[in-house]
Amino acid sequence: MQTGLPLNEACNLQVRKLEISDKSKGFVELLQQLTVCNTISDEDFQMRFQELSSLGDDHVICVIEDTSCGKIVATGSVFIEKKFLRNCSKVGHIEDVVVDRDSRGMRLGKRVLSFLTDHARSVGCYKVILDCSNENKAFYEKCGFKRKEIQMVKYFI
Amino acid sequence: MQTGLPLNEACNLQVRKLEISDKSKGFVELLQQLTVCNTISDEDFQMRFQELSSLGDDHVICVIEDTSCGKIVATGSVFIEKKFLRNCSKVGHIEDVVVDRDSRGMRLGKRVLSFLTDHARSVGCYKVILDCSNENKAFYEKCGFKRKEIQMVKYFI
Repeated sequence: MQTGLPLNEACNLQVRKLEISDKSKGFVELLQQLTVCNTISDEDFQMRFQELSSLGDDHVICVIEDTSCGKIVATGSVFIEKKFLRNCSKVGHIEDVVVDRDSRGMRLGKRVLSFLTDHARSVGCYKVILDCSNENKAFYEKCGFKRKEIQMVKYFI
Repeated sequence: MQTGLPLNEACNLQVRKLEISDKSKGFVELLQQLTVCNTISDEDFQMRFQELSSLGDDHVICVIEDTSCGKIVATGSVFIEKKFLRNCSKVGHIEDVVVDRDSRGMRLGKRVLSFLTDHARSVGCYKVILDCSNENKAFYEKCGFKRKEIQMVKYFI
């Protein structure tokens, strides 16, 4: 990396919404760094992509592409829950935030969080929430989040 | 309450999805027991109801009505998040579970949870999750949930 250049110029980083062509840019492989994610067929990928696209602003997936090599190096999603509570309010739920293991230390996670949080605010959410491990608590605190409740889970498989 | 009768017959409890007429049966007042929820105009209620109805199985609100007095005494919602992770999996998010303060101790909360959990399983979710306070942890454990992560929040207002 050249020194003296702003990070964006040096690394050619593009922060944007997921595009259908991102499957060939390592998007699924990136998710595999987060949890179990077998290979997805092109057909299944397209179907899920269309399902999510049809939700418009109510489900947004952010990616960061390193355009110098055409590789997706960070991602995260937010979906907008519509409630009756608090005068028909909305809440943003952030999910599946991951930064490529070779691209850490460049604040890409923070930029993904900013993108998702800004989106939630822009569509009228009064808060955004997410669940994380204790180990990642400090990272989210740096992004302006505070610890609130506990997450409970029930598995079917 | 008569004794010797099963709870359902004695109390005329009906477990079902939210209907638009439930606004006049105390649905909003019940939500007010959970958190801030000012009066909602009929127009706003109808608009939000239609928005959520258009999501079909992807957003379901369960209510329990005491048909002997036409009052909603418990509620909870679940929305279905569609992911790319885990081979294009789905996760159910349970929200806004509340039982009327005069109807507690009749396991209505557990019945709402069962309704929502069964729905999530039926549409193919591999798990359901929810966030709760430490005080409510024991209740959710009785419903088959286990503690997993921590919830982080960022407020906009």
